[in-house]
Amino acid sequence: MVVQDNYNPYENLKYESLFCLTNGYLGTRGSHEEGTARSIPCTYINGVFDKSETFMRELANMPNWLTLKLYVEKELIGIENCDILSFTRALNMKRGCLVKSVCLRDRKGRETRVESVRFISRAHVHRMAVRLYVTPLNYSGIIEIENIIDGTVINFCDAPRFKVKHTYLTKNEALDESGAYLEVATRDNHLHEGCGTVVQAVQEGKDVVKTNVFHDFGEQAVEFLDFDACQGETAELTKYAVIYTEREVKKEALKETIQQEMKGFLQTGFEAEFELHQKACEALWKEADIQIEGDEELNKAIRFNVFHLMSTASESDSHVNIGAKLLHGEEYGGHAFWDTELFMLPFFAYTFPKKARRLETYRYHLLDAARGNAQKNGFQGAQYPWESADDGTEQCPDWTIEPDGTCYRCYVAVYEHHVTAAVAFGIANYVRITKDTDFLLHMGAEILMETARFWMSRCQYIEEKNRYEIHKVTGPDEWHEPVDNNVYTNYLARWNLRYVIALAEQLEQEHPEEYRNLAEKIHLTKEEIASWQQVQGKIYLPKKEGTQLLEQFEGYFDLKEVLIEKYDKNDWPIRPEALKTTKTSQTQIIKQADVVMLLHLLGEEFDEETTKLNYSYYEKRTMHGSSLSPSIYAIMGLKVGDASKAYRYLRRAAFLDLVDLQGNTREGIHAANAGGVWQTVVFGFAGLSTDDAGRLHINPKLPEEWKGLTFRIHCPESWLQIHIDGEQHVDITVLDGKEVDILVNGKAVKAHKADA
Amino acid sequence: MVVQDNYNPYENLKYESLFCLTNGYLGTRGSHEEGTARSIPCTYINGVFDKSETFMRELANMPNWLTLKLYVEKELIGIENCDILSFTRALNMKRGCLVKSVCLRDRKGRETRVESVRFISRAHVHRMAVRLYVTPLNYSGIIEIENIIDGTVINFCDAPRFKVKHTYLTKNEALDESGAYLEVATRDNHLHEGCGTVVQAVQEGKDVVKTNVFHDFGEQAVEFLDFDACQGETAELTKYAVIYTEREVKKEALKETIQQEMKGFLQTGFEAEFELHQKACEALWKEADIQIEGDEELNKAIRFNVFHLMSTASESDSHVNIGAKLLHGEEYGGHAFWDTELFMLPFFAYTFPKKARRLETYRYHLLDAARGNAQKNGFQGAQYPWESADDGTEQCPDWTIEPDGTCYRCYVAVYEHHVTAAVAFGIANYVRITKDTDFLLHMGAEILMETARFWMSRCQYIEEKNRYEIHKVTGPDEWHEPVDNNVYTNYLARWNLRYVIALAEQLEQEHPEEYRNLAEKIHLTKEEIASWQQVQGKIYLPKKEGTQLLEQFEGYFDLKEVLIEKYDKNDWPIRPEALKTTKTSQTQIIKQADVVMLLHLLGEEFDEETTKLNYSYYEKRTMHGSSLSPSIYAIMGLKVGDASKAYRYLRRAAFLDLVDLQGNTREGIHAANAGGVWQTVVFGFAGLSTDDAGRLHINPKLPEEWKGLTFRIHCPESWLQIHIDGEQHVDITVLDGKEVDILVNGKAVKAHKADA
Repeated sequence: MVVQDNYNPYENLKYESLFCLTNGYLGTRGSHEEGTARSIPCTYINGVFDKSETFMRELANMPNWLTLKLYVEKELIGIENCDILSFTRALNMKRGCLVKSVCLRDRKGRETRVESVRFISRAHVHRMAVRLYVTPLNYSGIIEIENIIDGTVINFCDAPRFKVKHTYLTKNEALDESGAYLEVATRDNHLHEGCGTVVQAVQEGKDVVKTNVFHDFGEQAVEFLDFDACQGETAELTKYAVIYTEREVKKEALKETIQQEMKGFLQTGFEAEFELHQKACEALWKEADIQIEGDEELNKAIRFNVFHLMSTASESDSHVNIGAKLLHGEEYGGHAFWDTELFMLPFFAYTFPKKARRLETYRYHLLDAARGNAQKNGFQGAQYPWESADDGTEQCPDWTIEPDGTCYRCYVAVYEHHVTAAVAFGIANYVRITKDTDFLLHMGAEILMETARFWMSRCQYIEEKNRYEIHKVTGPDEWHEPVDNNVYTNYLARWNLRYVIALAEQLEQEHPEEYRNLAEKIHLTKEEIASWQQVQGKIYLPKKEGTQLLEQFEGYFDLKEVLIEKYDKNDWPIRPEALKTTKTSQTQIIKQADVVMLLHLLGEEFDEETTKLNYSYYEKRTMHGSSLSPSIYAIMGLKVGDASKAYRYLRRAAFLDLVDLQGNTREGIHAANAGGVWQTVVFGFAGLSTDDAGRLHINPKLPEEWKGLTFRIHCPESWLQIHIDGEQHVDITVLDGKEVDILVNGKAVKAHKADA
Repeated sequence: MVVQDNYNPYENLKYESLFCLTNGYLGTRGSHEEGTARSIPCTYINGVFDKSETFMRELANMPNWLTLKLYVEKELIGIENCDILSFTRALNMKRGCLVKSVCLRDRKGRETRVESVRFISRAHVHRMAVRLYVTPLNYSGIIEIENIIDGTVINFCDAPRFKVKHTYLTKNEALDESGAYLEVATRDNHLHEGCGTVVQAVQEGKDVVKTNVFHDFGEQAVEFLDFDACQGETAELTKYAVIYTEREVKKEALKETIQQEMKGFLQTGFEAEFELHQKACEALWKEADIQIEGDEELNKAIRFNVFHLMSTASESDSHVNIGAKLLHGEEYGGHAFWDTELFMLPFFAYTFPKKARRLETYRYHLLDAARGNAQKNGFQGAQYPWESADDGTEQCPDWTIEPDGTCYRCYVAVYEHHVTAAVAFGIANYVRITKDTDFLLHMGAEILMETARFWMSRCQYIEEKNRYEIHKVTGPDEWHEPVDNNVYTNYLARWNLRYVIALAEQLEQEHPEEYRNLAEKIHLTKEEIASWQQVQGKIYLPKKEGTQLLEQFEGYFDLKEVLIEKYDKNDWPIRPEALKTTKTSQTQIIKQADVVMLLHLLGEEFDEETTKLNYSYYEKRTMHGSSLSPSIYAIMGLKVGDASKAYRYLRRAAFLDLVDLQGNTREGIHAANAGGVWQTVVFGFAGLSTDDAGRLHINPKLPEEWKGLTFRIHCPESWLQIHIDGEQHVDITVLDGKEVDILVNGKAVKAHKADA
């Protein structure tokens, strides 16, 4: 339970993100049912994007289905209209619901207790509901209800300069004999979305609604209801909502579909649907839960990250991905970044391999678009966009408007090519973890070949040095852009080429027919493979002469050497004084893991000493200006034996949104960070890895605060529970599937079947 | 100046009524430009009604042209979003504008002074504007502006049960290169209304707008602008607005007309238009001002009533009337009642005779509808509706919904027939005061004949008593409904018959041609006139046997005699104890002037003794449950020598809305009461009257608090200024027109020409 026990309107936006509920299909932020002045009440549907007059296709805010207002004699029983006698809201992560209990006193002294439960069903993703338990404490009287579907919503509603409306109204009418129905369409693609709601009021099992009138108020569908409330007696008001889009059904059938779904929902009823939903949540937790003994608060924070991450991935739709802020806020328009492959995908590959496959299938669906991007930019193969929405074109704008109205040219999309390597790496990593040969054969290999071609076209031969270089790129460290020969990028480009050379050989032997088909489809020849071989051996990988110290990019070592020397009380780097007089780009200070990210991804390419050397060098130069950084340093720190900061990095990452460390939780949950939290626990502290041969390794390094750690993972043919105790002793249970050998601290250990 | 020097959001609705600005064409309530939580931000256009799913055609709330929001770094500089360092708003009645001066401090400590002037031009009634003088006191930065025309408005927005939307969107687009344009239409008649706005930001004479972007956000037209604000420097932001409806121009030409008008407005500019507006206000005040020496607060309150009354009457449109709450609020849907003829018309007839003519011409335009009403109800002639909107049909609903949702049958429209007498009396009174023979010949006479026919059909002959009776009516006292032979109604019916008998004779002699035409048009015969003669002599006028005490209605004297015996500290009747056990309708307690209203209207029919007797009898039984009552008692009290309460009645009436005595000022200004205030001063304390021969009488009875009273009136051929000093000495100046004789306390006095 994540609890809010104090109402402060200035915290509304943060809690709307923290308390956002999602089910893979859509997400609804944790706004109050009655509405508040400060609120960004968004419902986003995964995959429903619109550009209109903004710079990019972004998740379009859909009509707010949630609004439910109660009045006594015209006075709104609302958190901002009454004295608050008591207040608690809580996200119940186990049950996947948002609960509330408030006592409010209005201006005339009437006191009302309102308790509520809200859920977005995971059992039927088109269903959502909120139930209010309403008890007049010191009065009896008529309670009036407004059930609203609000189509006036816009994106960036609290930012005058950026406000944009992505939808227009197409229908506003009663749903059936009762209920409200609102239909809108996105402005660019005219994709229709329909929302139907029904409100029921019940007291002691009996329907108590006296009046029920529907109003079409422009873009608001408003249903008026009332009932007689008796002092001390609790009425149950339930708002049922159903949402579909033209992505699922033809627009002509939208309303009918929603009516039918609503009938089913009403037949099932709130309790039974909630029951089904909880079972679905339970099943998710069964896969993904992480239990830590002896560190309850941190455990809760870790679960918070796991909860939102696992909630957001679609169960069934391989045309959608996961945005950098999940479905929880407006920032980054719901776009997928390299965050998916490098930060979130490992979590999914190990705990929800089917969802991981969907995430990677999304990239396959957009392979043609990536080919188009490469062509457009004068490259070959497939270039994945830095920011990806629904059509696979670049959604990172060339220009951005600052809050002060000035425009500046944004070069991220032009230079940050490493995302294409990340996609390739993600696919390889997914295949390594899951052994999903089917995916590899029919989708993954094609992507990997095409990204290899992209890197081939990015490599330019420098004759005098007899080597290939990659110029004008930005590495993960965005404080130096663009640079030549970013070592991270070059290594990954080489890795991609090497990977596909081996892959081609392997496929040709093991799956000759599929390989032939693929080669034919993409016109792959032996000559081309030979050219890959030639290039990969000569890709320039800058490092300090005579040492194993990698140079982040060519010329980095010539920059002014500024080191981080002070840390604040949270052990967080304090900005060096030198940056007051020197531009960061002219110093060695970097934003986030770049070389260290490379060590993390391609660990097998570096010996222990090299890893240590580079870690310790770059650690002193990294400001962690991105939420993507600390978890990588934590994992790598543990790997090189520098456990000093790992625990605190983990705490920081786990609480990043819960305590709003960056002050921008209002804009959504940091998805990559959430994935990083999971990686820090599982890859860092539990020391889990899968080698190229598919063998699992566990090298536990639990922090001393922990008395035990339990989590579950899938390996290709088994489902395992891993328990590590305070003495770093590892116990592995096969929950399902075959018995397997695990290498614990290098020694083979047999995972035993659980007793029945 | 009516000043508000303290911001309390719970007083917003009251001040929106008090600070409503009107120009005869439209009215806009005194909402804050930036919007507040509690607000009924209405703009009503005189004559634009719509019914939709409500019970009656009511003034449709038009898009809110006023909204103008300022932001610094996304923080709204708003009265409810900041700490209020200082606050003053004031209605400047002389200049006809609303001014504001506030200092606000936002959450980040930024302090901004905002001063504003708002006016609805009387020089060009389609133009309105607000100017904000904005000064950042302790910061410099970008100020962002949202210029909004808000078409999401509904009627009764704060009453969930009664909410209704009377318009739908037809256009939402930029006005020209800059500016916003919103067009809506009423739902029943599809009458189009367009609103265009332009915002300018100027500093030291220079346009400082940096960005200007238009957005179509559903039913809101939103224009974004920004400028650089400098600490200590004042920027002038001016919002110009232009509104037209299809009543003035074809809907196809609406936008073009508004664009042209806006061009003219911008060319004229804010200052010059405001100058012209003030001149027009000055001209109004020159006619209508009442000056009282020695009683400043009361004088201001009286001017407050005169201000709103004179502001609301149309200068040019004889198809509109004046609603019971003016254009200032939602109550009574903007309908005209008997309030117009009996409470407001005298003010207009003496001070703005042309506007008075328009008010009565409105009744002529709806004469056919009145004929239809009579026919529908089984009567003859013309029956005017109790509540009249734009089409002359009855707009008083047969059923009303109580706030608790229960319906009750409302009989007002069925029985309150005296409104038809009021219309007839109003016309006769108007003609008596103005000698507007043209109106009488071409409109008034026809109405009077048709209302006489209505009364003929209402009179039923009771053979055994050889008299005519009128059964089943409700008199002005609505606490007894229905009754037989309401003496007020019967007297006025008789008066109507007698009046037209004399009129027919007079017209036949003096205007034979016009009379012939009229008689032909309405098939008026000598026989019919003879029948009127016969009936009028036998109309039953109930009174106490052997006395001159009129019986309010047949059987009234048999009701339980309950008297008012206690008065509160304001000398206001305290509800007698007896009413706790007996229904009011079974007692002699009455709501408002009924017999005393009769004495007031038909004074010449009653001798002094009769008047005194009845006044004193009914005064003890009247609860003044209507705002229409005290002024009449004040006038009549003065007439019969009971000055004891008159002054306090006047104070109460004058301050009724200013101090929200009835708690419903939020719903608009009590228009009849405003007229009653004027009548109490002019007819009561100044003792002015016009006799049937057209001679002016003045019998001053100034209260001892007053050191002098000055006001101006039109008599048919002169414009007079009347001054009465503390010694009750009367001084009359002819400001324009002929010299006339006035009967001051019965003695002829010559009004002298003013010295040049």
